[in-house]
Amino acid sequence: MSELYDVAAIGNAIVDVIAQADDAFLATHGLDKGAMMLVDEARSAALYATMAPGVETSGGSAGNTIAGVASLGGRAAYLGKVAKDQLGDVFAHDMRAIGAHFDTAPLIGGPATARSLINVTPDGERTMCTFLGASVEFTADDINPAIIEAAKIVYLEGYLFDAEPARRAFAKAAGLARGAGRMLGITLSDSFVVERHRGALLGFMESQVDLVFANESEITALFETDDFDAAVNQIRSQVKLAAVTCGSRGSVIVRGDETVTIPAYPVDQVVDTTGAGDQYAAGFMFGLAQGRSLEVCGRLGSMAAAEVISHYGPRPMVSLKDLAASKGI
Amino acid sequence: MSELYDVAAIGNAIVDVIAQADDAFLATHGLDKGAMMLVDEARSAALYATMAPGVETSGGSAGNTIAGVASLGGRAAYLGKVAKDQLGDVFAHDMRAIGAHFDTAPLIGGPATARSLINVTPDGERTMCTFLGASVEFTADDINPAIIEAAKIVYLEGYLFDAEPARRAFAKAAGLARGAGRMLGITLSDSFVVERHRGALLGFMESQVDLVFANESEITALFETDDFDAAVNQIRSQVKLAAVTCGSRGSVIVRGDETVTIPAYPVDQVVDTTGAGDQYAAGFMFGLAQGRSLEVCGRLGSMAAAEVISHYGPRPMVSLKDLAASKGI
Repeated sequence: MSELYDVAAIGNAIVDVIAQADDAFLATHGLDKGAMMLVDEARSAALYATMAPGVETSGGSAGNTIAGVASLGGRAAYLGKVAKDQLGDVFAHDMRAIGAHFDTAPLIGGPATARSLINVTPDGERTMCTFLGASVEFTADDINPAIIEAAKIVYLEGYLFDAEPARRAFAKAAGLARGAGRMLGITLSDSFVVERHRGALLGFMESQVDLVFANESEITALFETDDFDAAVNQIRSQVKLAAVTCGSRGSVIVRGDETVTIPAYPVDQVVDTTGAGDQYAAGFMFGLAQGRSLEVCGRLGSMAAAEVISHYGPRPMVSLKDLAASKGI
Repeated sequence: MSELYDVAAIGNAIVDVIAQADDAFLATHGLDKGAMMLVDEARSAALYATMAPGVETSGGSAGNTIAGVASLGGRAAYLGKVAKDQLGDVFAHDMRAIGAHFDTAPLIGGPATARSLINVTPDGERTMCTFLGASVEFTADDINPAIIEAAKIVYLEGYLFDAEPARRAFAKAAGLARGAGRMLGITLSDSFVVERHRGALLGFMESQVDLVFANESEITALFETDDFDAAVNQIRSQVKLAAVTCGSRGSVIVRGDETVTIPAYPVDQVVDTTGAGDQYAAGFMFGLAQGRSLEVCGRLGSMAAAEVISHYGPRPMVSLKDLAASKGI
């Protein structure tokens, strides 16, 4: 089959509600700064009632990445489950409006579209409480082989490990991707996800995955160490290619014996770190799909991450294609 | 009755969908830059399908003004109709989260919460297509006398002249306000609203209104003249107090023989003019309710307008109270 897409991604289809908060708010509600916590519908509603006025915007980690790939001019497809409701319509609109293919059937008669309540503190850190709603009703039946088999890179979100039906969908997608000779990528998503599913993630990585994205807290959680360098060396031996981000210190890319370090792009003011890792993955995979060097892939990732943390919201607000051109990447 | 509120406002309760567009997009869809056009649900859906990815945020002219009054530290109440749906819940949340009183019963079983599709061009101008949905189901029964009679200033949105039941609600609110000796303010809202309802607006202003907000195109439309100064002099003879905004040229306030001109606040970059007039009215009325001079009222209005046009979205993103303090107003 011909390659119709640079990247096809599967993830939890989520609408973000972004509001400003202070550290005291996080403490009052027992929220761990920078982390993602799963909440049920009642807890989500109770927390929302105490939050500041918000802005609603399409989100979801892999959804943000796909928006970034499309913004870079890449051909992108997304698979994920929204409900047939207003926020689900918004999510679907935004995905198609950026030029990504999205045709997963919406859920009718079940829970509402997933919602992530994101409290952004003055330091730009985002703390997320996610009600997964309809997103966890994504099943293996929603995997369209024609899309998976037509993508250069198939990208999976670690968050999906939290739901059993989504894990089966994961396995199906991985099998189809491998069968078609496609590259399989995964993001570890969150250190708590890693804690919850360490064994399954390691097994999946070792047997199936070509490309891993992680940040510092995720990779050290994965290998149960405080030593970042040791963790990076461990992942080097586990997968063909890994890109590990370290916030303002940039990123490290490892492939076999090769190590490439990429500085972070300078940002005037960090407004909201939501989507930083997602956009790094977008830039990196877009570069990879274009056959660029690891250094260029990393620089594209850093550039996309820098754009998204300079404003509220998890998706690019300018054309990343134009931005890359203006920076000569 | 004691004064529980500085400002109580009645308006169309609307959720904004904000997206970037270029001039060609406006031309293709026959949209008049800077104006507000009413569309039905089908036209709204068709236009939405062609728009860029968007951000959803609570809006509505008077709703934005009330959010501004609350952000300045004022006591504020809002009356307007949303549907019992996800976007209606968002609107209600945002109103209460900013500290405004809002208890209008949501509409059940009717049209969806009103939605305004706002295309923002690179020059920062906003062009709006509004599906009024549930908002026009606001009726005289929704007017809570206890709120109207307890507000120093009762503020009405000219947009409400487009729906007959809302006009009756308008009349009831005006009667209650006058009966309680409250100040009655109105914004002309939009030059097309003025064209559609010139006679009714003029009659209402002459007989009931103490305070009028207008921009240049609205006031010249009202008096069917191209001469701005002539229009300002006409409104001087019609109402006790009027504040007329002229974009980057600031504003003119007239009260009897008195004329106060206020410069616009400097803004580094105009990102999105949505809500500029609404925030001017917020600052002005907050100052008025505190018994400040017309000059200070105008400066508060200019400051609030400058804040809102420096970012996407129609409501303040910082505490206007803190901003005013930092500027020594």
